[in-house]
Amino acid sequence: MTMRRKKVSVIGGGFTGATTAFLLAQKELADVVLVDIPQMENPTKGKALDMLEAGPVQGFDANITGTSNYEDTANSDIVVITAGIARKPGMSRDDLVTTNQNIMKSVTREVVKHSPDCYIIVLTNPVDAMTYTVFKESGFPKNRVIGQSGVLDTARFRTFVSQELNLSVKDVTGFVLGGHGDDMVPLVRYSYAGGIPLETLLPKDRLDAIVERTRKGGGEIVNLLGNGSAYYAPAASMVEMVEAILKDQRRVLPSIAYLEGEYGHDGIYLGVPTILGAGGIEKIIELELTEEEKTALSKSVESVKNVMNVLS
Amino acid sequence: MTMRRKKVSVIGGGFTGATTAFLLAQKELADVVLVDIPQMENPTKGKALDMLEAGPVQGFDANITGTSNYEDTANSDIVVITAGIARKPGMSRDDLVTTNQNIMKSVTREVVKHSPDCYIIVLTNPVDAMTYTVFKESGFPKNRVIGQSGVLDTARFRTFVSQELNLSVKDVTGFVLGGHGDDMVPLVRYSYAGGIPLETLLPKDRLDAIVERTRKGGGEIVNLLGNGSAYYAPAASMVEMVEAILKDQRRVLPSIAYLEGEYGHDGIYLGVPTILGAGGIEKIIELELTEEEKTALSKSVESVKNVMNVLS
Amino acid sequence: MTMRRKKVSVIGGGFTGATTAFLLAQKELADVVLVDIPQMENPTKGKALDMLEAGPVQGFDANITGTSNYEDTANSDIVVITAGIARKPGMSRDDLVTTNQNIMKSVTREVVKHSPDCYIIVLTNPVDAMTYTVFKESGFPKNRVIGQSGVLDTARFRTFVSQELNLSVKDVTGFVLGGHGDDMVPLVRYSYAGGIPLETLLPKDRLDAIVERTRKGGGEIVNLLGNGSAYYAPAASMVEMVEAILKDQRRVLPSIAYLEGEYGHDGIYLGVPTILGAGGIEKIIELELTEEEKTALSKSVESVKNVMNVLS
Amino acid sequence: MTMRRKKVSVIGGGFTGATTAFLLAQKELADVVLVDIPQMENPTKGKALDMLEAGPVQGFDANITGTSNYEDTANSDIVVITAGIARKPGMSRDDLVTTNQNIMKSVTREVVKHSPDCYIIVLTNPVDAMTYTVFKESGFPKNRVIGQSGVLDTARFRTFVSQELNLSVKDVTGFVLGGHGDDMVPLVRYSYAGGIPLETLLPKDRLDAIVERTRKGGGEIVNLLGNGSAYYAPAASMVEMVEAILKDQRRVLPSIAYLEGEYGHDGIYLGVPTILGAGGIEKIIELELTEEEKTALSKSVESVKNVMNVLS
Repeated sequence: MTMRRKKVSVIGGGFTGATTAFLLAQKELADVVLVDIPQMENPTKGKALDMLEAGPVQGFDANITGTSNYEDTANSDIVVITAGIARKPGMSRDDLVTTNQNIMKSVTREVVKHSPDCYIIVLTNPVDAMTYTVFKESGFPKNRVIGQSGVLDTARFRTFVSQELNLSVKDVTGFVLGGHGDDMVPLVRYSYAGGIPLETLLPKDRLDAIVERTRKGGGEIVNLLGNGSAYYAPAASMVEMVEAILKDQRRVLPSIAYLEGEYGHDGIYLGVPTILGAGGIEKIIELELTEEEKTALSKSVESVKNVMNVLS
Repeated sequence: MTMRRKKVSVIGGGFTGATTAFLLAQKELADVVLVDIPQMENPTKGKALDMLEAGPVQGFDANITGTSNYEDTANSDIVVITAGIARKPGMSRDDLVTTNQNIMKSVTREVVKHSPDCYIIVLTNPVDAMTYTVFKESGFPKNRVIGQSGVLDTARFRTFVSQELNLSVKDVTGFVLGGHGDDMVPLVRYSYAGGIPLETLLPKDRLDAIVERTRKGGGEIVNLLGNGSAYYAPAASMVEMVEAILKDQRRVLPSIAYLEGEYGHDGIYLGVPTILGAGGIEKIIELELTEEEKTALSKSVESVKNVMNVLS
Repeated sequence: MTMRRKKVSVIGGGFTGATTAFLLAQKELADVVLVDIPQMENPTKGKALDMLEAGPVQGFDANITGTSNYEDTANSDIVVITAGIARKPGMSRDDLVTTNQNIMKSVTREVVKHSPDCYIIVLTNPVDAMTYTVFKESGFPKNRVIGQSGVLDTARFRTFVSQELNLSVKDVTGFVLGGHGDDMVPLVRYSYAGGIPLETLLPKDRLDAIVERTRKGGGEIVNLLGNGSAYYAPAASMVEMVEAILKDQRRVLPSIAYLEGEYGHDGIYLGVPTILGAGGIEKIIELELTEEEKTALSKSVESVKNVMNVLS
Repeated sequence: MTMRRKKVSVIGGGFTGATTAFLLAQKELADVVLVDIPQMENPTKGKALDMLEAGPVQGFDANITGTSNYEDTANSDIVVITAGIARKPGMSRDDLVTTNQNIMKSVTREVVKHSPDCYIIVLTNPVDAMTYTVFKESGFPKNRVIGQSGVLDTARFRTFVSQELNLSVKDVTGFVLGGHGDDMVPLVRYSYAGGIPLETLLPKDRLDAIVERTRKGGGEIVNLLGNGSAYYAPAASMVEMVEAILKDQRRVLPSIAYLEGEYGHDGIYLGVPTILGAGGIEKIIELELTEEEKTALSKSVESVKNVMNVLS
């Protein structure tokens, strides 16, 4: 009988990683280890210390450690991977994939070495292919390697609908399938305000506009910031997935999961509705799709496969 | 009988301002307007939107608006000022004071124009002199113009003590008087763990080391980050002060308050224990000081006055 | 610009009223006044004091006052009415209606006298008729007199579905129309788990059984307790409605609202989907009903009217 | 690596036990099993179900089970004992002690049988002697058998001081030693508002009155209620202790702990400052007492021993 605190390591000490660490500690979900490369060790320690100093005021007891040493991640319950580079001007997409794939491989080896029983959630883009990479490199069973995209996509969708209808975000839901971004397959027919289908509350052109804005939601923030990408909502989305697993909540949340025949696809990581609990992805929920949705999903699968083809 | 939501404007959309905005929204304390200069309007809008998109996941209903237009701050209940520049290499201290003084004046004129009944809390450094500047420029009564430093200083002190004793931050308290940073006058005899005086729990040299580390707490983070300064703990500290006022909690918190004879000083803003409630600074609590403490406080006052002499 | 705390009065200091008071204070939503008849003044004071003494441990700042004097309720923002008797063995339904109607009238006169601008939410059974009574007696506009039943009914429905599917309650929703209890008109087609219609997740007989159990949900607790009725879930439901109004959340929640033609009915209080915000019931949401649902709703209306016919 | 939810069993389904169960579930600290005798099985099930039905509204995922079968408590992490009778008119104190001692013995046997590794926290009065009884009967090491009284006593003290000074409860602390009730040894010199010793903020006669009111705090509620005793604040106090252990917070809280020489006493359970963490009572903090305090503590020890002499 041990009351050992849970431990979550966050790989990548950039804004998303740091914000994830802070939100985890704030909820007293776990002690947090924030990891970055040796050159970034001091800034990472600085962020960790700054967060820790917010603890007495916000009233949370959680250790937050900044480090570049993977030994500090030993025996993590969950490891969140946010490491990787963003696409820079002049960089080809394939170069991005290759670079981040190499980062995923090296990170995964370290993670697995020190936390052989952990769950891994991946946020690094292109997230479907990167989750696949981590899965292969880790040798972990598929329920323990998960990607994040749908929680964030639906959060954006819900925000836009709430604004449009002037309603509480608590009562608006959204639903997506497939890859992140342009390939997102929104199931608007499964999206509601107070349980009422959005299709009956909003005209089609407004819904279409909201879906389109959601698809480009990441880009909208990038364009506004001018220098960097979103991190508040991505971190919050990550924390919701971590919490579902740590607390065995059996949440119904969209995850990037490894398909073995579900939805007619195989050997690919793709965004699908899942049950997240103590066992990680405990179940993939299969839904009947319309022909239109099947087509959109296949297109999404093609996109993911195109990226996977770049993987070495 | 109106249920109008409270409104808090945060001037300065940098890391501290943005984090303050997020923590306020997260607690559903108020709708938040994040203001920066026109050149930063888009990044400020981007941060606000990113935070808003965290709302559905974190479960908060609060509008967050990014803007460069002070009209959007109209009728704020509280305005938090984080705007200003940080000291750059080669810049004299006097130049810093003059530059930030000018920023305070211009910000205050806009704030007062649109929210003539608001409370103002200042975080910009050198914070004692900047709070004084805002007080003078605003023409507000002294209870409605407040500076932040002691909540942050004690948060750091509490963090270090908690680590040293391996105890919950919930049970460790600290107490400071005077200016921010090197001039801080820590009243260790009013600092406890579980109500037990720290002086009986820690040897003097350890306590002295912790006090010294607290004094240089801002610099420690600056040195680690390499490029920037602390924002998590400063933002959390600000939010605690805002909450105390918005909810009329009558908290006993250290504030930078305008002295009119208290502690033997007059016409100066200085860190002292106060009661924060619906009336802003509702009371300054005067304590008997030892001779040693009086001397330290006078030294702190001198430092503040030296900065004030630079003010035009 | 005032930071005055919100004030909520709870009429009726029984278990439901007391639990409502505690949950309100715990969330620091308002100062709370718990009112009962003079004979119960001391027990009401005792409960209020006991709750207050939980404040330092649970960390909430809210006054809780027990009283039999309506002057203490002056200028409440919201008044919650839980007063009234439960049906006793041998008592006819009509006697119950008449007794509670008289209690509603006398309570309402006192409430209106001291808080002429407040919102009123009624929980006393038979709740549709009692809300109507309060509406008539108060002379308030219809948006400011509201009854609670649907939040509780759906909470029970959601609990049973969560257990059946072994899923987080956070992801299960329910939807009801019409009167409380046996006359409830559940719209299962608007009920979901993770956005997925329950009709596709559960066989019809299981859903039917859950609907039936929900209809009799109050009785199930009464039978188990042997002596008394439910109060935890009713109080929590009440608090959700109060919070939606106090924080202007624009929640989509089922309320007992005054119909003037909506759903084809007029001059009657009935459970319908509403938007709850700073204006109380800001809108009644009208949905297309199937013939079956219309019939069920008409039956529910008949039941409510039968009770209303007893009103004097 | 298991994400198994924590499990807490609460023995005794009366108001204190039930409220403890609710507050534990509300915080998602653990799944909760509420146990009462077979004759009370249905009411206990009713309370558990009612609480569970509050879950969807309050947003918590935690199972709450009502039962009379100790098998349902198997492998609890913590067991809270609230079972026992209250003193009735005409009942001698010795009869009360004997009756509750027998209840403790029988409860403890069942608890130990099904959760041999659990921690036990006792609330049943006379709590010092009853904790001792559970300790002896369980055969558990002393760090795993704990009594509650000081958290409640200080909560009351803090409430009264907050009211007297019109300050936030968040900033007022209290400190007690010794037995519960009349024998309480309040260390006012270790009690503060915002870190400032209460002795400098309140005149001696007011402090004395508050101490006296705290001593009789349980009786005050009993007298007001007329029929029953306090349960909100006792339950909240219990939950704080449970949380400290479950989350390994290393809180500094007053506990009823087994003394082996500490404070000059041996072989007795007594209220003392302790560190509560993953190891239960991880440390007893010994303080220098004044002669007056030593005398008061000895008197308190005598009272406890007088009760212990009744134990068979």
